[in-house]
Amino acid sequence: MNNQVINFNEKLRLFSDHWSPKIIGQMNDYHVKLAKIQGEFVWHSHAETDEVFIVLDGSMEIHFRNGKVTLNGGEMYIVPKGVEHKPFAAAECCILLIEPAGTVNTGDAGGELTAWDNVWI
Amino acid sequence: MNNQVINFNEKLRLFSDHWSPKIIGQMNDYHVKLAKIQGEFVWHSHAETDEVFIVLDGSMEIHFRNGKVTLNGGEMYIVPKGVEHKPFAAAECCILLIEPAGTVNTGDAGGELTAWDNVWI
Repeated sequence: MNNQVINFNEKLRLFSDHWSPKIIGQMNDYHVKLAKIQGEFVWHSHAETDEVFIVLDGSMEIHFRNGKVTLNGGEMYIVPKGVEHKPFAAAECCILLIEPAGTVNTGDAGGELTAWDNVWI
Repeated sequence: MNNQVINFNEKLRLFSDHWSPKIIGQMNDYHVKLAKIQGEFVWHSHAETDEVFIVLDGSMEIHFRNGKVTLNGGEMYIVPKGVEHKPFAAAECCILLIEPAGTVNTGDAGGELTAWDNVWI
């Protein structure tokens, strides 16, 4: 699925579900993913990996046990491994994620928002 | 240098030199970098790693021995490891790069455009 130009907006038009990252590229053993998020996710952490959040459109928050950050379009935050966090978006927000292939969106938390079906688009 | 919101435009205002990637974040053993490019780079390849190019502003080409691709804002291309490529931008173009920490911009080619001084901004 590499060897082609990936246009983020074209890819974003291909899905509408929230909290279900779609894989758009692979770099070594890492996946580049797009996601649409809205509302409140679950508290979770990833014991084995940092996680890159880049906001393409809209605005989101990442809540931590001791505070939160707000990300707007053109902004990035890297959540360190092991740090509990809870993404939140008051309105729909489009984000780019970079993390190791096989990373589960809910990390250690599991539950109904777990996207077991990470798929390429 | 993690644990803070990284605004790409704010970081881009901090430098003006071309072909000299600046590190803005680290995810595990990978660096997220910003670069401004203009003109023609050298043919090179990276034997050990794929390389992610994301165009933030402007337009660039990546030439290959058997063709080329054009990337505009909001587009990504992942150059597979070992593939010879030559970036080119007719006018200044701002890009985001993701690659393993320690990756040298000119890969196997070396030469005067080699940025030995990759620095955090």
